[in-house]
Amino acid sequence: MAVEKTMDKIVSLAKSRGFVYPGSDIYGGLANAWDYGPLGVELKNNVKKAWWKKFVQESKYNIGLDCAILMNREVWVASGHIGGFSDPLMDCKECKSRFRADKLVEEDLIAKGEENASADGWTNEQLKEYIEKNEIVCPKCGAKSFTDIRKFNLMFKTFQGVTEDASSEIYLRPETAQGIFVNFKNAQRTSRKKIPFGIGQIGKAFRNEITPGNFTFRTREFEQMELEFFCKPGTDLEWFNYWKDYSWNFLLNLGLSKENIRFRDHAPEELVFYSKATSDIEYLFPFGWGELWGVADRTDYDLTQHMNHSGHDMNYIDPVTNEKYIPYVIEPSLGADRVTLAFLIDAYDEEELENGDKRTVLHFHPAIAPIKAAVLPLSKKLSDKASEVYDNLSKKFNIEYDEAGSIGKRYRRQDEIGTPFCITVDFDTLNDESVTLRDRDTMDQIRLKIDELDKFLEGKIEF
Amino acid sequence: MAVEKTMDKIVSLAKSRGFVYPGSDIYGGLANAWDYGPLGVELKNNVKKAWWKKFVQESKYNIGLDCAILMNREVWVASGHIGGFSDPLMDCKECKSRFRADKLVEEDLIAKGEENASADGWTNEQLKEYIEKNEIVCPKCGAKSFTDIRKFNLMFKTFQGVTEDASSEIYLRPETAQGIFVNFKNAQRTSRKKIPFGIGQIGKAFRNEITPGNFTFRTREFEQMELEFFCKPGTDLEWFNYWKDYSWNFLLNLGLSKENIRFRDHAPEELVFYSKATSDIEYLFPFGWGELWGVADRTDYDLTQHMNHSGHDMNYIDPVTNEKYIPYVIEPSLGADRVTLAFLIDAYDEEELENGDKRTVLHFHPAIAPIKAAVLPLSKKLSDKASEVYDNLSKKFNIEYDEAGSIGKRYRRQDEIGTPFCITVDFDTLNDESVTLRDRDTMDQIRLKIDELDKFLEGKIEF
Repeated sequence: MAVEKTMDKIVSLAKSRGFVYPGSDIYGGLANAWDYGPLGVELKNNVKKAWWKKFVQESKYNIGLDCAILMNREVWVASGHIGGFSDPLMDCKECKSRFRADKLVEEDLIAKGEENASADGWTNEQLKEYIEKNEIVCPKCGAKSFTDIRKFNLMFKTFQGVTEDASSEIYLRPETAQGIFVNFKNAQRTSRKKIPFGIGQIGKAFRNEITPGNFTFRTREFEQMELEFFCKPGTDLEWFNYWKDYSWNFLLNLGLSKENIRFRDHAPEELVFYSKATSDIEYLFPFGWGELWGVADRTDYDLTQHMNHSGHDMNYIDPVTNEKYIPYVIEPSLGADRVTLAFLIDAYDEEELENGDKRTVLHFHPAIAPIKAAVLPLSKKLSDKASEVYDNLSKKFNIEYDEAGSIGKRYRRQDEIGTPFCITVDFDTLNDESVTLRDRDTMDQIRLKIDELDKFLEGKIEF
Repeated sequence: MAVEKTMDKIVSLAKSRGFVYPGSDIYGGLANAWDYGPLGVELKNNVKKAWWKKFVQESKYNIGLDCAILMNREVWVASGHIGGFSDPLMDCKECKSRFRADKLVEEDLIAKGEENASADGWTNEQLKEYIEKNEIVCPKCGAKSFTDIRKFNLMFKTFQGVTEDASSEIYLRPETAQGIFVNFKNAQRTSRKKIPFGIGQIGKAFRNEITPGNFTFRTREFEQMELEFFCKPGTDLEWFNYWKDYSWNFLLNLGLSKENIRFRDHAPEELVFYSKATSDIEYLFPFGWGELWGVADRTDYDLTQHMNHSGHDMNYIDPVTNEKYIPYVIEPSLGADRVTLAFLIDAYDEEELENGDKRTVLHFHPAIAPIKAAVLPLSKKLSDKASEVYDNLSKKFNIEYDEAGSIGKRYRRQDEIGTPFCITVDFDTLNDESVTLRDRDTMDQIRLKIDELDKFLEGKIEF
């Protein structure tokens, strides 16, 4: 029987083992902000490294970039974020609570069993009319009297320089993509890349969400791993499918279960106006299906916007055919925190052992496991030899050293944090230069020469 | 004769080769914000990886952490940033320009040849008195009439949630250190570490500097690599010296020239009141000596502040002796952007070759070189074989593939971006499975089997 994976169990393990702590914990936190602990930072870094390896390093097509979070205000005018990146909010006149009008409508549609319960793209007027007609009440106090709906921009605003007026107003970027678009020409010219080619970036973005939640799934501060792939118009749907598959395989190769992920193609009426096609890869979280990866054909929308707004030519001239065009863009955009959470949940298991004991285990793929191996001296008298093994391996891998408690207890501890291999140093080791290597998943043990460990681990980590 | 390294040359190379571009370039930039291009992101990532390897992964003492940028406001009350993290500013009444009063005083002291030209720790009154007594004029218009001095807080302010009032005011962290202090207990407990141990973190911080400058040396958005090392009071000066040496060796081992770095111990009157000792590692930039690394003995100041302000006990109880104390903290804090810039400048050289040609070359240590090797087919007919070599190596290393132009030109190109090795695939390769490997620094060439390349590169990258 499959174990029930609840968010409570995951959050509790994450806190107690040092994957994720509430942010600013000793001060009562900060609305759904989270800090990655010693294991969490390794897990997330491994996921980021894996992405960079597959989407930048190994790909002959792609190069990397790392742009500043603070950008010129005009970037967000051109991208449409200043004009249109907002939530429709309204207040209850009685209890003064604030709500997203579209969410109230959607909840009502769901309650009525409507098949299409999405209010995406509705105008303020449509939302207001629906709320009044359907006599939706304040979820907090039950009153039926709301203010008008007003748009609330989701970008965090700050001031740069010594004055705090409109002229010094700037924003924390709400996505990493625009940094790539404004650098398209610089990056293309200096790297001498020819179309098709892509630019990848990993970095933080910020959205002042009204209702963040579900642990690290939706947070105001989050990290994105985005590729913007520039191709010739007409070849875009081919590349769209290429990157859909490539992204899908990335998740499978790192061990995510096939039955827990799915594609969700956006229906034509759901697409933003400039997109030709969009498909999400969703993961089945304990709270339901949630988006991990958005793969979108954004056409030439972004580069055209920046060309018109900045006055800089964004055309590409094919060096062979001399054709001139604005490239189309395929964007596979992955949330680093979300996919890290998905890997954590997917890896989680509780197992009954042959002797009746239970163990909690995280079946991480070795490539993303926070700790690759634990070195366990069977006795403190062996700590010199064990330290030698640790020192050698830790030059290349993140290794834990643990000499506290019975060997069985130490195994359980490593199982619970997803360490794929335990290396036990015993008294025979002093004579035969060999150790016992235990596999986390099968719990099988083999005897291995110390100088074979490096190669063994490297082979397991490959993906 | 040593080549003259000017900032102009470095900035120009950085832009033209794709290390660093001006941020938001097509919109005229944003006051001293910079984006890392395809080579810059690899260089900086390599520096960060090297730090993590030496300060977290290889050290049995240390663990990692990754905290949110947005923290509870009370963190900055406790740390003293809300009260005291400010610059003294005043305006010229005539031309309305704004200046840092301490900088005007310091410039005057330097001009007068004073040995101690620091105004650190001066009160507003002292600054004002000096300015009036010495009749300092506005550097812009020459007038002698300034407003009063007022404190200007250096933290970027923003609002979280749906209102923009004091209750929703939060800050972009001005340093990564506080995230570690507030997590001291969580991290210690979940990792079961015993004193002495350290917590390392890499992440962005933001300071609303009035006068950022010198390329990426002083920017409003920057990245820190910080270790907070917790030890028993009384052992702190020993650990202070340990981490001073460890940090110094880190720079030398990655190839920074000994003659371009120095320690600068803070004089007793220069120390912040809670610090027992502070020493900077400085690098000789083209614009003068500049701080890379600050190593400070911060005593128990930070943990005590947070204990008093949050009410959470920050005492550590020694599991063996049962002694109870607030740990002392040694903080080696390194600027990721600064040290990346130092590596770039240090690596830069212009050389005259035997045949009279000149070359620009970046002598990066292979561990931090953006591209480890370039695969160069001698003819386009060899691109299948060369691609095979590229595909194999790029699983492990960042490799460039270049088949455009004469082999001499391709060598120059790789020299200029600091690629330590060029791998030339020629027609003999098809028969003997060997390639020609050229060393960037010596320009010597050797013949090597394709299946030995992996191990060869790995050996060179080790540090």
